[in-house]
Amino acid sequence: MDQPIGIAVVGAGYWGPNLVRNAQATPALKLRYLCDLDTERARRVLGDYSTVRVCGSLDDVLADPAVDAVAIATPAATHLPVALAALRAGKHVLVEKPLAANYADGLELVREAEERGLTLMLDHTFAYTPAVQHLRHLVRSGEIGTVRYLDSVRINLGLVQPDVDVFWDLAPHDLSIFDAILPDGVRVARVSAHGSDPIGAGRACVGHLTLELSDGVLAHVHVNWLSPTKIRTMIVGGSRRTVVWDDLNAVQRLSVHDRGADLADSDENRRQAIVSYRRGDTVAPALPEREALRGVMAEFAASITEKRAPLTDGSSGLRVLATLEAASASLAAGGEFVAVDRVGPPATP
Amino acid sequence: MDQPIGIAVVGAGYWGPNLVRNAQATPALKLRYLCDLDTERARRVLGDYSTVRVCGSLDDVLADPAVDAVAIATPAATHLPVALAALRAGKHVLVEKPLAANYADGLELVREAEERGLTLMLDHTFAYTPAVQHLRHLVRSGEIGTVRYLDSVRINLGLVQPDVDVFWDLAPHDLSIFDAILPDGVRVARVSAHGSDPIGAGRACVGHLTLELSDGVLAHVHVNWLSPTKIRTMIVGGSRRTVVWDDLNAVQRLSVHDRGADLADSDENRRQAIVSYRRGDTVAPALPEREALRGVMAEFAASITEKRAPLTDGSSGLRVLATLEAASASLAAGGEFVAVDRVGPPATP
Amino acid sequence: MDQPIGIAVVGAGYWGPNLVRNAQATPALKLRYLCDLDTERARRVLGDYSTVRVCGSLDDVLADPAVDAVAIATPAATHLPVALAALRAGKHVLVEKPLAANYADGLELVREAEERGLTLMLDHTFAYTPAVQHLRHLVRSGEIGTVRYLDSVRINLGLVQPDVDVFWDLAPHDLSIFDAILPDGVRVARVSAHGSDPIGAGRACVGHLTLELSDGVLAHVHVNWLSPTKIRTMIVGGSRRTVVWDDLNAVQRLSVHDRGADLADSDENRRQAIVSYRRGDTVAPALPEREALRGVMAEFAASITEKRAPLTDGSSGLRVLATLEAASASLAAGGEFVAVDRVGPPATP
Amino acid sequence: MDQPIGIAVVGAGYWGPNLVRNAQATPALKLRYLCDLDTERARRVLGDYSTVRVCGSLDDVLADPAVDAVAIATPAATHLPVALAALRAGKHVLVEKPLAANYADGLELVREAEERGLTLMLDHTFAYTPAVQHLRHLVRSGEIGTVRYLDSVRINLGLVQPDVDVFWDLAPHDLSIFDAILPDGVRVARVSAHGSDPIGAGRACVGHLTLELSDGVLAHVHVNWLSPTKIRTMIVGGSRRTVVWDDLNAVQRLSVHDRGADLADSDENRRQAIVSYRRGDTVAPALPEREALRGVMAEFAASITEKRAPLTDGSSGLRVLATLEAASASLAAGGEFVAVDRVGPPATP
Repeated sequence: MDQPIGIAVVGAGYWGPNLVRNAQATPALKLRYLCDLDTERARRVLGDYSTVRVCGSLDDVLADPAVDAVAIATPAATHLPVALAALRAGKHVLVEKPLAANYADGLELVREAEERGLTLMLDHTFAYTPAVQHLRHLVRSGEIGTVRYLDSVRINLGLVQPDVDVFWDLAPHDLSIFDAILPDGVRVARVSAHGSDPIGAGRACVGHLTLELSDGVLAHVHVNWLSPTKIRTMIVGGSRRTVVWDDLNAVQRLSVHDRGADLADSDENRRQAIVSYRRGDTVAPALPEREALRGVMAEFAASITEKRAPLTDGSSGLRVLATLEAASASLAAGGEFVAVDRVGPPATP
Repeated sequence: MDQPIGIAVVGAGYWGPNLVRNAQATPALKLRYLCDLDTERARRVLGDYSTVRVCGSLDDVLADPAVDAVAIATPAATHLPVALAALRAGKHVLVEKPLAANYADGLELVREAEERGLTLMLDHTFAYTPAVQHLRHLVRSGEIGTVRYLDSVRINLGLVQPDVDVFWDLAPHDLSIFDAILPDGVRVARVSAHGSDPIGAGRACVGHLTLELSDGVLAHVHVNWLSPTKIRTMIVGGSRRTVVWDDLNAVQRLSVHDRGADLADSDENRRQAIVSYRRGDTVAPALPEREALRGVMAEFAASITEKRAPLTDGSSGLRVLATLEAASASLAAGGEFVAVDRVGPPATP
Repeated sequence: MDQPIGIAVVGAGYWGPNLVRNAQATPALKLRYLCDLDTERARRVLGDYSTVRVCGSLDDVLADPAVDAVAIATPAATHLPVALAALRAGKHVLVEKPLAANYADGLELVREAEERGLTLMLDHTFAYTPAVQHLRHLVRSGEIGTVRYLDSVRINLGLVQPDVDVFWDLAPHDLSIFDAILPDGVRVARVSAHGSDPIGAGRACVGHLTLELSDGVLAHVHVNWLSPTKIRTMIVGGSRRTVVWDDLNAVQRLSVHDRGADLADSDENRRQAIVSYRRGDTVAPALPEREALRGVMAEFAASITEKRAPLTDGSSGLRVLATLEAASASLAAGGEFVAVDRVGPPATP
Repeated sequence: MDQPIGIAVVGAGYWGPNLVRNAQATPALKLRYLCDLDTERARRVLGDYSTVRVCGSLDDVLADPAVDAVAIATPAATHLPVALAALRAGKHVLVEKPLAANYADGLELVREAEERGLTLMLDHTFAYTPAVQHLRHLVRSGEIGTVRYLDSVRINLGLVQPDVDVFWDLAPHDLSIFDAILPDGVRVARVSAHGSDPIGAGRACVGHLTLELSDGVLAHVHVNWLSPTKIRTMIVGGSRRTVVWDDLNAVQRLSVHDRGADLADSDENRRQAIVSYRRGDTVAPALPEREALRGVMAEFAASITEKRAPLTDGSSGLRVLATLEAASASLAAGGEFVAVDRVGPPATP
């Protein structure tokens, strides 16, 4: 790394300060701007002791040749124009989830980046946590066998968003985690969504997603803004082991259980469903303590330098978007299953 | 209570021994028989020190005038003939959940009991736990406001049943608990069920039920035989308080949270969905330690003596059955919503 | 086992019913009597359906040749006369902890049993739990290396006993567990005890024991009747692994941690205390679900039949008693260390 | 606040970066220097984007009139010379716990600050957590009644310090928390300390402190560097309520239990120790999420501006030091109780 990559953060709202902090802590990056229409807010984010420049104009930032890359933390509805402008100015782009407000917009960004040979990376932060990286290893190495089912719960008393429902706000996390750990990413065949809005907010505040993956595996996601209690649990059921990830249990986030049920192996038994049970030990792997966003920044820099696709590239963003759009269509259709390829072409491996 | 009520337990399998033990501990009951075709098994259940008689013939038991009541813990498929025989012999009946193998059979039992003026009670054991009784009080007294949503998770490494799927095995618990706590019982308008059978058992082993109640409230139930980790959590979201019941947390089963989101009250704000949040204290009410089945037995005896409907009467059993049947229909129809009145008349208050 | 061993339970108070239930469930035993001065209480314990005889006279029970053994669950102060009478009548004895009210009495019982060739066994129930048996295996097999320290916490809102302080009420559990798991039993060199009586009960309600074992290892026990929260945790620190036993965590009672600190191995470093750390995985071994008292009964029967010392024999009871007596002496002396051989001869291996 | 208070942080090791970050975030302070002999380390702490100056010379920092105050995060052994130099240069001082390496040194600092009318404040960070501030309120307002006992456990796999034992490393936290919550601060009459060094580190790695407070209350502190599992629990037993603080339970740090035992109130009963029990509800108060060190900085600034003693003033530091010294004396004397006034005069109210 001869020369650090010049980067600008766009958006000084909820997530921007985290990008600022982690960009500064990444040796391969040189933070040049924090850009926000509200320059006062940007100044407050940087504080009184920073040498980083504040800029209220995206154009000015993109015009600076010292800026090689842009990290975007603006509302999803603005991702298309902001990211497009950045790509057209020849900048690499790291974009907050979801990639864009809809699949068509996301696709436009992916194509623009491809044509220009620029990195387009999703800030799927969870994919860079030690827990997900270990889970990815457990799934992809075959240690847990084949995946049998997935179940994710992400509920707490959350902020009711003014522009998106609970699916678009929270489920991108679950979907991008599925995408990170499954061998071919999250290949969803069809989606059923049930939601409710018991406080009259004008959008679903409680939601249940049932995903049928292309290999027939069923995955379920429960997202909820109204729960007084916070739960962040994912179960990855495998044929050899089942992993339970409890993200709030700081001392034992992952538990790899040698417990499960299997069909006894004789044909004649199949009719009778003779089931055998394993009730073995549980292993809690030691995980490093590491801030995920540090890993996001390092991967962004490395993918630019090495001219390769990042772990969470545009196509992972598209798979998430296509699933969310199908979920919205299902919700509108009263919960019936909607095929993902109705909204976007099936993602290519 | 001049004379204790003579009772016979039918079925010495998984649940029968619990009925035997609790019937013996209930002063208002006099246990006269343990009845099972497999008399050897019945003898083992009673042990070497019991004065209770073993009997292999239901007819003989029903012919004994000292038997006033029968508690049935046989497979669901046999509930109709066994309970019908008992009722026709003039015996009061306590029956294991579910009431019968289908709604029509259940209805026949309810009508038979009504015509004969006999008690027909469901052993919805959970309804008699201190936690549910307190929850019932919190909901029915209005302390938590109006119910906004219900969410129940009942998962562990369970026995894959040879005759029923995971919905019929586990969801009766959740449905009967809803029935016990909601002011008019669980009035389900329509049901959507998603299930999967990832081990090839021939029936759903993982299941998700979405219930739309007659007042529009959405309830969700997750049942799972394949989870290595055991979870028994129910959330009852209310407009004033939300209760989280964690049945595995012996020292704090119920937590009543003064936490939640509400829509701000002005009409002009409604468009903007201005939301206010409460983040108050949590109260964990002191609950007595008491075996639920003891309460079942006491209620059975009291309802007989006082000639009144028991808390968990036949109609509660019918509401549960109708919901389960609609769930099976939804499952067969690929998850589409099925109206409960397609399978049974809407239960009357 | 040609003929089951005839047994009588003496004492129908708090613990007696458990002995009755488990004796009945043990095929090698034949329960003949429940003996209590308060025959009405004994009858209530047996219930209305039992063939077991109630007897108010210990002499009558001991005179019955069908009684081969006696299980004693009377107050500690009565252990000497009751057990002595039983032994002198030629009966094997299982006695509730502690063995006797003081070391001298306990020694008399041990000698009487030895002279007569009879089994004298302590009901150190915890020693027969799956958790302690696995812990015993982990320690004795060398899997955790050499023991470095022991720490036990046993606190909750407990019944303030009228006759003994919190050390004599609760610490026998911790001491007998240490005794079961350590290769040579719990060999205590000296003891320091601190206690307080903040409610004015006339005896220590909160207590801390520091034990210096004969090999220099320090063990600490915290017992407390006044804690609103219940904690039952033991840490067995070893040179290779450290085990944490949380008895209230039903799904993960034992956690075997490959985590710890070690001195780096060079002499010159010793002065500098260069320490290396292991931060490896945690393994939660699968444990069977089994009632401990069933194991107590089986061991009692087996030790009689096989004419061998039981796992928790009289000498284990003496080691516990000697430690408790030294603790009382320390408490009286303001917490100074008291050598255990001041109260009893050091137990022989 | 016309002009922010100019401050320098001294020490860029483990804790210094936290002081730097929080000083920068405090409007009433203006961070002017980070001072460390190792200027390269200081530069790394500030990062590449800071306008704060690095300085390798304490003298130069103290000579700058723009520096009004100094926050010291150097090893305890250097607190005396560093803080003394700062005070003599007329600077207010915030010093890392413990105040100094021994009581005499600490006293010298307190007197120097008093003579010069300067603020000398201890960074007892825990005292500024929302949990301790609420606990302080509960104790001082009388809501929990009179304090009956204190119990604190602070164990995990910690860094074996090269210069101090586990008592001096960890117990200052517990003692300063006691000091913050008790109405008159932690008035310790005498101390008994037991420690062990099972890895041969040359200093106690496992420690137990028994404190007898001046009003007779017993407090116990368990500190341990070798535990594979992390526990941070404090019990404050009161005559009306008992509070359990579990600092690792982020969703319910404080539990206020209406559970306890009381002596029944008649004189004749006193002999019999008739005890009554309360088994009421538990309340978990809502606590704000707030970084404690932010509160430390705000209090430091406010105490300077308002020319008043800070919450954690020099005398609180002396009370902690005197207790630690008595603990060391007790440890050297084999655990016997050592009066605190043997090492320092009893702190004055």
